[in-house]
Amino acid sequence: MIAERALIAQIRLLAKTRLAKRRDNPTVLAGIGDDCAVLRLARHSGKPIDTLVTTDFSLEGVHFRRDWHSPESVGHRCLARGLSDIAAMGGEPLAAFLSLALPRGLPQSWVDRFAGGLLALAEKYAVILAGGDTAQSPNGILADIVVLGTVPKGKALLRSGARPGDRIYVSGELGGSAATLRQMQKNPRRKLNPRDYPRHFFPEPRIELGRILREKDLASAMIDTSDGLSTDLSHICQESGVGAELQAEAIPRASVGKPAREVDLQFALHGGEDYELLFTAPRHKRVPARIGGVPITQIGQITRGRRIFLINRSGAAHELKPQGWEHFRK
Amino acid sequence: MIAERALIAQIRLLAKTRLAKRRDNPTVLAGIGDDCAVLRLARHSGKPIDTLVTTDFSLEGVHFRRDWHSPESVGHRCLARGLSDIAAMGGEPLAAFLSLALPRGLPQSWVDRFAGGLLALAEKYAVILAGGDTAQSPNGILADIVVLGTVPKGKALLRSGARPGDRIYVSGELGGSAATLRQMQKNPRRKLNPRDYPRHFFPEPRIELGRILREKDLASAMIDTSDGLSTDLSHICQESGVGAELQAEAIPRASVGKPAREVDLQFALHGGEDYELLFTAPRHKRVPARIGGVPITQIGQITRGRRIFLINRSGAAHELKPQGWEHFRK
Repeated sequence: MIAERALIAQIRLLAKTRLAKRRDNPTVLAGIGDDCAVLRLARHSGKPIDTLVTTDFSLEGVHFRRDWHSPESVGHRCLARGLSDIAAMGGEPLAAFLSLALPRGLPQSWVDRFAGGLLALAEKYAVILAGGDTAQSPNGILADIVVLGTVPKGKALLRSGARPGDRIYVSGELGGSAATLRQMQKNPRRKLNPRDYPRHFFPEPRIELGRILREKDLASAMIDTSDGLSTDLSHICQESGVGAELQAEAIPRASVGKPAREVDLQFALHGGEDYELLFTAPRHKRVPARIGGVPITQIGQITRGRRIFLINRSGAAHELKPQGWEHFRK
Repeated sequence: MIAERALIAQIRLLAKTRLAKRRDNPTVLAGIGDDCAVLRLARHSGKPIDTLVTTDFSLEGVHFRRDWHSPESVGHRCLARGLSDIAAMGGEPLAAFLSLALPRGLPQSWVDRFAGGLLALAEKYAVILAGGDTAQSPNGILADIVVLGTVPKGKALLRSGARPGDRIYVSGELGGSAATLRQMQKNPRRKLNPRDYPRHFFPEPRIELGRILREKDLASAMIDTSDGLSTDLSHICQESGVGAELQAEAIPRASVGKPAREVDLQFALHGGEDYELLFTAPRHKRVPARIGGVPITQIGQITRGRRIFLINRSGAAHELKPQGWEHFRK
């Protein structure tokens, strides 16, 4: 356990150093170094709040591979998954908790760089790493991230608010992350340059967009595209008791690689881990084409049925079944 | 993923069924089935609160073995670890979040029984399973439990409050869990009856005791004995900047097995996972010999130095070094 202890001490030190910088922040009264973290959740501009909690695994061999993803990318993606869930509720993230199990013999540099990637993203959104757990892993690197956030009382954007006639919107572009993964699967030994595939290696959680949509009361339902458009839209439809029609031509497809090439529609329809926001808005709401610097595209509308149809350029409709995103599974 | 999906659906169903029973509880506004859980944390009898968060891994091969621990015991212990951390702050648990990764081919009955053990303990303490994450595990069963609780504002019992002259107390008896583990290591094929080894297989988190100690303002510092007395006391000493003297004779040793036999002092000193409460109290406080039905024993006192000494029957003092609890490592 000596090596693991040293690694863990390193992470605690990194977290404490950054925590110390933020003594002005009254949220975390006791962090790493007690049985629990103690948080004093402030009110939102004097108004009562609800508390948001999300947890997400990042498992080696399931969510990342050490030969494909740099430690910084693994750390960034680990936290981005949780932040994206907070964004999908229109919330503001406050604190993160990292449970980390490391296999024997993992180089300390890997952990340093992992922590660097995670903490850089945490700092960007003023999120404090307030605790967690550490263990020795029997096999591979195992991380579980918990993110706590807040939203003004009663204002969380749920999946269940979509109504027939609502328009369906998505932020950014879809399919870029899955198309990147496919390239690595085809050429496992070729190292991709993260700069040419940013949405896969360093996805940006849409925190500001989520907050603006909530503040302006634009969205009726929202989810992040972690499992892929077909699956995530089916979650909204299921929780809201509605169906949907998507215009295939309207779906914004990502361009990845160098030279950049637009991904196939299948990636945009079923590829996961883009961490964009998928939301519905009542027909009378005016949704800008760009919010907080992020392009917003209308891709369809909510219907009365319970099924989802994809309508192609010639107007033909095919039922779109959720395919479920399974990371490395082909 | 078909099998995993079915298992996961099963857990969600179990959790939802039990959740539905508690619609009167306003804490969880949205649980499993959205991007985040949404909690409305009530005030404590009208007073402001602080929020407690703790996370704990339960990894197959590290924290449990499928051939030694029944699924019910694994589920119970998984949640008990988190509840014990809440108890150690004098807090009241509210909601739990379970991240669970399952290997291919795990029988559904294992998951049913695991969920049964976990949810039975959750119900006992009115804790709602409010969310989590699921994944396929590349190797073995991986669980990470998050427990959220509350404590009246500013009243959390930290590790850092011990002062020279304070008396040191421990609840229940020590060493029972480690001695049980040692028996299984010696005879890996002999199945132990959990009834003869309850503190190992079904440890009871000391929630009520922790709450009473906080309400009556008796304890100056507190921790739960998850890593073993020598290590956990060293945490209090380190965080409080003090030392300690323990009376070897006074340390309450567990009796385990059938016929029950008192464990060796070494187990009581260094064995982990007893989940008792170890606390300090100023000398002038009258600490009852039994609180909430749990025996309380004075085992030593806090000193000015930074080291911990063990004093034997003849009055000789030896320095006690924290040995650190490493589960199955010998």
